[in-house]
Amino acid sequence: MNTFGRIFKISIFGESHGTCAGIVIDGVPAGIPLISSDFEADLARRKSGAKGTTPRIEADVPKIMSGVFNDLTTGAPIMILFENTNTRSHDYSFLKETPRPGHADFVAAQKFGGFEDYRGGGHFSGRLTLGIIAAGVIAKRIIAPIIVTSKLIEAGGIADIEKAVEIALEKGDSIGGIVETVATNMPIGIGEPFFDSVESVISHFVFAIPATKGIEFGSGFAAAKMTGSHHNDKFISTTGKTGTNYAAGVNGGISNGNDLVFRVAIKPTSSIHVRQHTMNFKTGEMTDLEVEGRHDTCIALRIPVVIENATSIALADLLLQAQKVSRIFGK
Amino acid sequence: MNTFGRIFKISIFGESHGTCAGIVIDGVPAGIPLISSDFEADLARRKSGAKGTTPRIEADVPKIMSGVFNDLTTGAPIMILFENTNTRSHDYSFLKETPRPGHADFVAAQKFGGFEDYRGGGHFSGRLTLGIIAAGVIAKRIIAPIIVTSKLIEAGGIADIEKAVEIALEKGDSIGGIVETVATNMPIGIGEPFFDSVESVISHFVFAIPATKGIEFGSGFAAAKMTGSHHNDKFISTTGKTGTNYAAGVNGGISNGNDLVFRVAIKPTSSIHVRQHTMNFKTGEMTDLEVEGRHDTCIALRIPVVIENATSIALADLLLQAQKVSRIFGK
Amino acid sequence: MNTFGRIFKISIFGESHGTCAGIVIDGVPAGIPLISSDFEADLARRKSGAKGTTPRIEADVPKIMSGVFNDLTTGAPIMILFENTNTRSHDYSFLKETPRPGHADFVAAQKFGGFEDYRGGGHFSGRLTLGIIAAGVIAKRIIAPIIVTSKLIEAGGIADIEKAVEIALEKGDSIGGIVETVATNMPIGIGEPFFDSVESVISHFVFAIPATKGIEFGSGFAAAKMTGSHHNDKFISTTGKTGTNYAAGVNGGISNGNDLVFRVAIKPTSSIHVRQHTMNFKTGEMTDLEVEGRHDTCIALRIPVVIENATSIALADLLLQAQKVSRIFGK
Amino acid sequence: MNTFGRIFKISIFGESHGTCAGIVIDGVPAGIPLISSDFEADLARRKSGAKGTTPRIEADVPKIMSGVFNDLTTGAPIMILFENTNTRSHDYSFLKETPRPGHADFVAAQKFGGFEDYRGGGHFSGRLTLGIIAAGVIAKRIIAPIIVTSKLIEAGGIADIEKAVEIALEKGDSIGGIVETVATNMPIGIGEPFFDSVESVISHFVFAIPATKGIEFGSGFAAAKMTGSHHNDKFISTTGKTGTNYAAGVNGGISNGNDLVFRVAIKPTSSIHVRQHTMNFKTGEMTDLEVEGRHDTCIALRIPVVIENATSIALADLLLQAQKVSRIFGK
Repeated sequence: MNTFGRIFKISIFGESHGTCAGIVIDGVPAGIPLISSDFEADLARRKSGAKGTTPRIEADVPKIMSGVFNDLTTGAPIMILFENTNTRSHDYSFLKETPRPGHADFVAAQKFGGFEDYRGGGHFSGRLTLGIIAAGVIAKRIIAPIIVTSKLIEAGGIADIEKAVEIALEKGDSIGGIVETVATNMPIGIGEPFFDSVESVISHFVFAIPATKGIEFGSGFAAAKMTGSHHNDKFISTTGKTGTNYAAGVNGGISNGNDLVFRVAIKPTSSIHVRQHTMNFKTGEMTDLEVEGRHDTCIALRIPVVIENATSIALADLLLQAQKVSRIFGK
Repeated sequence: MNTFGRIFKISIFGESHGTCAGIVIDGVPAGIPLISSDFEADLARRKSGAKGTTPRIEADVPKIMSGVFNDLTTGAPIMILFENTNTRSHDYSFLKETPRPGHADFVAAQKFGGFEDYRGGGHFSGRLTLGIIAAGVIAKRIIAPIIVTSKLIEAGGIADIEKAVEIALEKGDSIGGIVETVATNMPIGIGEPFFDSVESVISHFVFAIPATKGIEFGSGFAAAKMTGSHHNDKFISTTGKTGTNYAAGVNGGISNGNDLVFRVAIKPTSSIHVRQHTMNFKTGEMTDLEVEGRHDTCIALRIPVVIENATSIALADLLLQAQKVSRIFGK
Repeated sequence: MNTFGRIFKISIFGESHGTCAGIVIDGVPAGIPLISSDFEADLARRKSGAKGTTPRIEADVPKIMSGVFNDLTTGAPIMILFENTNTRSHDYSFLKETPRPGHADFVAAQKFGGFEDYRGGGHFSGRLTLGIIAAGVIAKRIIAPIIVTSKLIEAGGIADIEKAVEIALEKGDSIGGIVETVATNMPIGIGEPFFDSVESVISHFVFAIPATKGIEFGSGFAAAKMTGSHHNDKFISTTGKTGTNYAAGVNGGISNGNDLVFRVAIKPTSSIHVRQHTMNFKTGEMTDLEVEGRHDTCIALRIPVVIENATSIALADLLLQAQKVSRIFGK
Repeated sequence: MNTFGRIFKISIFGESHGTCAGIVIDGVPAGIPLISSDFEADLARRKSGAKGTTPRIEADVPKIMSGVFNDLTTGAPIMILFENTNTRSHDYSFLKETPRPGHADFVAAQKFGGFEDYRGGGHFSGRLTLGIIAAGVIAKRIIAPIIVTSKLIEAGGIADIEKAVEIALEKGDSIGGIVETVATNMPIGIGEPFFDSVESVISHFVFAIPATKGIEFGSGFAAAKMTGSHHNDKFISTTGKTGTNYAAGVNGGISNGNDLVFRVAIKPTSSIHVRQHTMNFKTGEMTDLEVEGRHDTCIALRIPVVIENATSIALADLLLQAQKVSRIFGK
């Protein structure tokens, strides 16, 4: 399914080497100021070109195609389009014989019967995250004063990220990393019992982002080794603030007013310059594969803003649902 | 939202100390044999009574109320009801003044304005997972020959689970654990691009289960420290089998035919006999809280079957969607 | 699909001659007073027993099974159960050979492969509307001060409904009718552009009610013969009131503050005492069929309260969505 | 909500006088041939320019922006864009003072706080139906061999449609009409019990099309005057064919293999050249309003293809759901 959300609802489309990537955003309240340059800062954080990222550089110009009038949202669906401009005409026909290890090449061909657009990952490309950045920029205005911040806290197993990238560049290999997200100014009561817990909705989105392998909230996997008397966050104020925050600001799936905190594990990107030993599906023999092209040494450098904006989208949708309930209740 | 799934769709309801807990299951194909005793084995695995679990023992008798005729599913919605029988009439009024640390007491009161059923956790109770067990039993028949197996592989930080429980029992404290799930005989092509990746749908459900703090697929958090040349699973057969399985049987969100593997971190249950220092919300003073009642020392002992059945439900829903696509494609 | 609604969301289940019929209602705000007797008045309007309705009389006792605590809604899903008590053990095996003309017997057997519960219409029975009555009673409290009223304005082609029933009873035949619904005190702004227009959502539900054949809003089919200068409702006040109301209180799918008005055509019930000439599917020969049992001469007598409550449910769902938008907008 | 469908899922966007109108279509099976010219025939039927339609003529060139590769669908979402080219820069500021009777001007301003794009109807414009035409063209290939045909059978109250248009043109007024739709080669078993009956899903969509005031299936409103012995369609073959077809090919919400037949009432378009007496919302006085611009005398001339394609979309979604069920059942 290409849609996410119940009220703040997004629909994505596009391919890496096709005409465009883009998104339709429904459920945006009317009257929010919005111009193209509002997307610049977040798009810049996702951009390649820096050390450790692919040298394929695109202008990434967002075109607001609908739902905005006189630089204000109208309440109608907003479509934002990113045209593809820098798509080198590689020869990708080798993928039919030797699908790249770690990529979606093989499953896409199986699921879509060989009709998939295989160029540059097609619909599975990280380029699709452009739309998520755009929708996140709008979501951030809806959730204000909540502020979501994501940053890379570790790469290649060490905290010195610059050094980790240098080592990997030398080897022509790729490395993973860990992205930490914190949301402050959280209101109490976001999240729905059972299936739409805060963690459920956020993790659903995060695992749609290519390269994610794990997510943990607050104490996370360390909780498995802790005792209850240690793990239980003691209340220290009548507003619900707690001394520790192992719960990550969520109890029973509902926000408790403390900071929302989670970490995401990013795998090393599958695209590498290193020669790989793999199966030739036509001959049934093992063969060497060396993929040319422009790759990210550390894709995790570009992912924090994607997770930050995905989280903002998830929170916007939950916030709109929660407000609905309390409003009625208050009447 | 109390619903999960697009085609195999479940709706839960119920409370810990109310009349019942239960579930409605829509989208079940007609003609599947189903009688009450089919639920026994899985319900027994969730049951309390063993060392390390609460001594509150309920009969947990599932009543099939609709959607089954002559011991076969009819294609109509199936409602399964678990009546509550062993609900001691505790005095829970203290919760208004001193909500228990680590529980949903505080957020529930805030979100629902004090109208929530606070007895025994109310709608937030683990008792709601009875319906998930029931739906999972049906899901398992739909996904066959896929077999999902979940087990506790670590508790209180050690692999000797029995020993971990004994230590905790002595202290009157609670401990967490790690549950590992493996699905074998996976077909290729389950999962939808982007928002309904296999990992997205499973993690959405897993974080709805009380006490979960993290989830990782395959290499998981270790992936963040690995290189691409190491992490990329090499194909070793033309059916898509790979030598390693860091991908956990999923590429680009879609199953690749190798085993699906993931681990879930379970926190120590918040209910403990140990005295806790916390806030009295009426007086605004710190106070000591000691909660009487019957608690699980290691709730993680009872959770594997819940995760196993939740995973089966998620896979059933994705399988039905995937078959739909391939059928059309094949016409 | 057994669910309806995006925020005020219902899931139905049950059969005519099985254990029960019932409904789960999610998205109900907390704090609404609710006891079993609140359903009595509306259930009585649906009840049989009066002249022109079937003599099968059931107690129709609603059991509130979840989501209510101390006679107030809690915000958790509300399950309401109607146990079947008066189910005569007819022999329905003849349906396999001679499915009744005008009934769902034939399509149900085809769709569900013969596994359907065919007794008394099974899941296709009008008995399923009991849950709709119950959910509608709750919806009415959410939409207040909006008041929805449905009544039978014509039966068997004449306005004298009592007389129409008498004529039909003499013949042992059944008759149809027209139900008119008016919603007053409508706020401006309910309904969503395009796919969730007020008319879309209401008609979706109305055509789920057995026996409906048509629906028209305001001018309806007469509009096809009118001119624009006549049909355009002139504004007569700055609050949006219009002189005429051909639009039925809706423009562009959104409520304009004038009364919502629509009419529904109800067919004569297919169950009749008259002998019918039809196909024997086993022999392939034409045969005579005479169905014994207790039938409604004029099912349209019992349908107004179903449409009234269905409309209330649809409006509750749209109202909750509309309030969400305006609240954000107003911040 | 801007989305429709559960599996074959569409999301629309756009405005009359903005940059574009368009649609995203998800759930399209891979391998379907598709090029821009495939849309020509249906777009031509919707086009204006003929007698009785507005002289505003647009090229209506569909651009396939994603989801198609080498002229075949890939299984990824298909985005189709119609750029607006012929948008005269009228002065629409008068709408703030004197919203046009019968239009969405007033409700849009109320619902969206004055931020709506009011030019030419904005998001409420009939121009949005371009996307529906495009999606319908694809849907028709999925539902083959089902063939859906819609035509105008009456305008201005008479069957001689050409004459009706001439009379209206002379008066500068607008007229309505009735569109009849027939779907042949229907399989048995499309439609889901209760909320997704064939009639529910089709009417939901039809009432999203601007100008619709009523819908009736088969016997429709005439059924209200009929008796059951007359209305019950007798089976005449063991394949389920019936002698009469008052049921319109649907029993209990599920297709029975006979033709699906329904009629839709179209109101006269609200845009007329005739002077209208209405409210000035600024002064609170009654005033005369004469709207300049290019109008359709009989919008019903252009609507049949919209209903035909909307019906094809609805049937495609139901067909994909039904196949899913039977496939599992058959395993």
